[in-house]
Amino acid sequence: MLPKVKTPTRRIEKYKGIIPSHLFKEIKKIAKDLKGLKVVHVNAAPRGGGVAEIIQSLVPLMKGVGLKAAWHNNPPGEKFFTLTKQIHNAFQGKEFELPFSARKLYIRHMEKTARLMQDMKPDLWVVHDPQPVGIAAFLPNFHPSVWRVHVDSSHPNREAWEFIHPFMLMYDKIVFTSKEFIGPSLPKRKVAVFSPAIDPLTSKNKPLSLNVAKNIVETLGVDPDKPLVIQVGRFDPWKDPLGAVEAYQIAKKKIPDLQLAFLGLFLARDDPEGAKIFKKVQRKVKHDPDIFLFSDPGQLGSLKVDLFVNAFQVVTSVVLHKSVREGFGLGVTEAMWKEKAVIGGKVGGIKLQIKDGKNGFLVSSPKEAAKRIVQLIKNPKLAEELGKEAKETVREKFLTPRLLRDHLKLYQKLLC
Amino acid sequence: MLPKVKTPTRRIEKYKGIIPSHLFKEIKKIAKDLKGLKVVHVNAAPRGGGVAEIIQSLVPLMKGVGLKAAWHNNPPGEKFFTLTKQIHNAFQGKEFELPFSARKLYIRHMEKTARLMQDMKPDLWVVHDPQPVGIAAFLPNFHPSVWRVHVDSSHPNREAWEFIHPFMLMYDKIVFTSKEFIGPSLPKRKVAVFSPAIDPLTSKNKPLSLNVAKNIVETLGVDPDKPLVIQVGRFDPWKDPLGAVEAYQIAKKKIPDLQLAFLGLFLARDDPEGAKIFKKVQRKVKHDPDIFLFSDPGQLGSLKVDLFVNAFQVVTSVVLHKSVREGFGLGVTEAMWKEKAVIGGKVGGIKLQIKDGKNGFLVSSPKEAAKRIVQLIKNPKLAEELGKEAKETVREKFLTPRLLRDHLKLYQKLLC
Repeated sequence: MLPKVKTPTRRIEKYKGIIPSHLFKEIKKIAKDLKGLKVVHVNAAPRGGGVAEIIQSLVPLMKGVGLKAAWHNNPPGEKFFTLTKQIHNAFQGKEFELPFSARKLYIRHMEKTARLMQDMKPDLWVVHDPQPVGIAAFLPNFHPSVWRVHVDSSHPNREAWEFIHPFMLMYDKIVFTSKEFIGPSLPKRKVAVFSPAIDPLTSKNKPLSLNVAKNIVETLGVDPDKPLVIQVGRFDPWKDPLGAVEAYQIAKKKIPDLQLAFLGLFLARDDPEGAKIFKKVQRKVKHDPDIFLFSDPGQLGSLKVDLFVNAFQVVTSVVLHKSVREGFGLGVTEAMWKEKAVIGGKVGGIKLQIKDGKNGFLVSSPKEAAKRIVQLIKNPKLAEELGKEAKETVREKFLTPRLLRDHLKLYQKLLC
Repeated sequence: MLPKVKTPTRRIEKYKGIIPSHLFKEIKKIAKDLKGLKVVHVNAAPRGGGVAEIIQSLVPLMKGVGLKAAWHNNPPGEKFFTLTKQIHNAFQGKEFELPFSARKLYIRHMEKTARLMQDMKPDLWVVHDPQPVGIAAFLPNFHPSVWRVHVDSSHPNREAWEFIHPFMLMYDKIVFTSKEFIGPSLPKRKVAVFSPAIDPLTSKNKPLSLNVAKNIVETLGVDPDKPLVIQVGRFDPWKDPLGAVEAYQIAKKKIPDLQLAFLGLFLARDDPEGAKIFKKVQRKVKHDPDIFLFSDPGQLGSLKVDLFVNAFQVVTSVVLHKSVREGFGLGVTEAMWKEKAVIGGKVGGIKLQIKDGKNGFLVSSPKEAAKRIVQLIKNPKLAEELGKEAKETVREKFLTPRLLRDHLKLYQKLLC
């Protein structure tokens, strides 16, 4: 059996008062048809990154509505994960070459993974992202099966796409986050589209009083009473941290006491590229005492990461998400849920969430971002209005129960 | 480098007086565009079966018109070939299961094959049949590439098709023998259709005098002056040898001195299923002294197989090809080329060659076959007329130069 992640069971009623009430009825009706269904989710790892967060909330809810849902992972492999990270980046369009040795590494790891799956006989497989997609080649009767891809693969690198594409086609359904992300040469009947979601009941998203939040932020050296911009996310070229610094630097000319905090926790050992970008950011910020780079969980002392992020999202005046490619942007959703007006890069999944000028702002350059930072800080009323609208957007579209419904509907289509 | 099969060079002019003259012009015109093109053909084995025969005639001609064509094989593997034979049968619709271990065996063999191909850099790959198709997963820049499948895959076993299908899609073009053979879920733009061909200059197909042929047949115990039906082909359920015996037995009631010869050479060690069918045929023929089963090259003494087949095709009154599935039926083409009226099963590739009542007969049961045997033997004039028409059909459509032209046209489309 593949390595299993333990999951609790959670009743859908816990979301009463948070999600639109029609969702309860809808979910219960579909769940009736699927009672006892054995669903196995497979992804790369039990934590780290949005996909693990999504599954962590989704599986307990599936169990709560009567499915026998379980969550398993690829067996780990350092070289393998380095390769699949490259494939992930190549899906987003990065230059890439896939020589014989890399193909062999991937396919051998799929063989190893599939070997561990021979004794697993669920009613339905749900496989996430490129890391485990190739298992399908090694397993007989791998049906029905869903491949859920969380990457913006609208303009993938050809070599990476051609390598993974045949494996995708072995699945009965392929789920993208956005219509725009659907990669080349896929039969329409196989494709489904729905977006991810955040869980309002996790410690990262639960209501946090402003006072508690201010205390946390202050402990970490940031002045909660001065204007603050935050960007949450890895130090990664796609997140454009350099563009975020530039936007801050332009805005600071108009708002001299502006602060910038990067919540970009990563473990350097696992992410050599992240470490490189981080150094570039360090060079760019020089010794500006108003810029705070959080790059290592060690900096937080005993504070939990989730609470740390939550506190900054509650305190901050403005949230920046200056990505140039974005599979979805769970960080955007989280901030919107906290009634923040997010200034987001006009790309990928962010465009699904932010309607420019209605519940936040979409920008295409550091200069534009700077203009919006100044506008929101000088006009708290506008920030408040956009923030309220942002929260309602998330309530309607981007909370886990809606994602649960979309999954269940898809399963129903495949099975009933 | 993959194991290489040595090939001579043959000038297209050798076919003067044999093929329609317009073909020379056509071929030379296309070949000009492709001068010096490095084409590598890859198939399972250097001999045994029609595919090797086809490549053996095609590659020398490609070299003759100025291409740098070469022919390579899969590295051999006993278990691997047993598996791919099963896949071949499953493509023709036979029940089949493909467990983890078989998938692993296939994919590991593809890895091994591709490893030997890393130093090969042709301008174009032409890969034949399922045995090597999966190499594409292991090789970067495997373009342009053609997959040529010789099997009737109109109603394939689902598990076999789903396993091989993704590999097919890695090729730029997929060539089937007949429109009817095109398997499920293939994009139209990738599919091409043209049929195989026989080579009139090989020892199997070169003109042979009736006297020499009669002598050969007589040496093997068959009376060349009594009515004779032959069936050429492996002892294989798809070739329906039991149906052929039945047809003979029915016809023998009307033509008491009728003889039946099976030219079904095979090596029992390589083909356990063939051995089983052979035993069934033996039981069915009992001790009829007018039935001759040629099942082992040892029975021929010093006589070459090609000459043996040629002689029987020249002497026989009627040729039966009672298949119930047929990728093409090169044996049908060979007999037609010798001006024989062939009675063929109304299936697959045979339907491409025989127009019922015009250049042979199509039948769907042993009873129908028996009726046609009697009709042709009692009416030699009809047999002669159909035979003449049969030869013209082959001259127009099924000789190697036409196949050469179709290959070159395809390459031109892909490259120019």
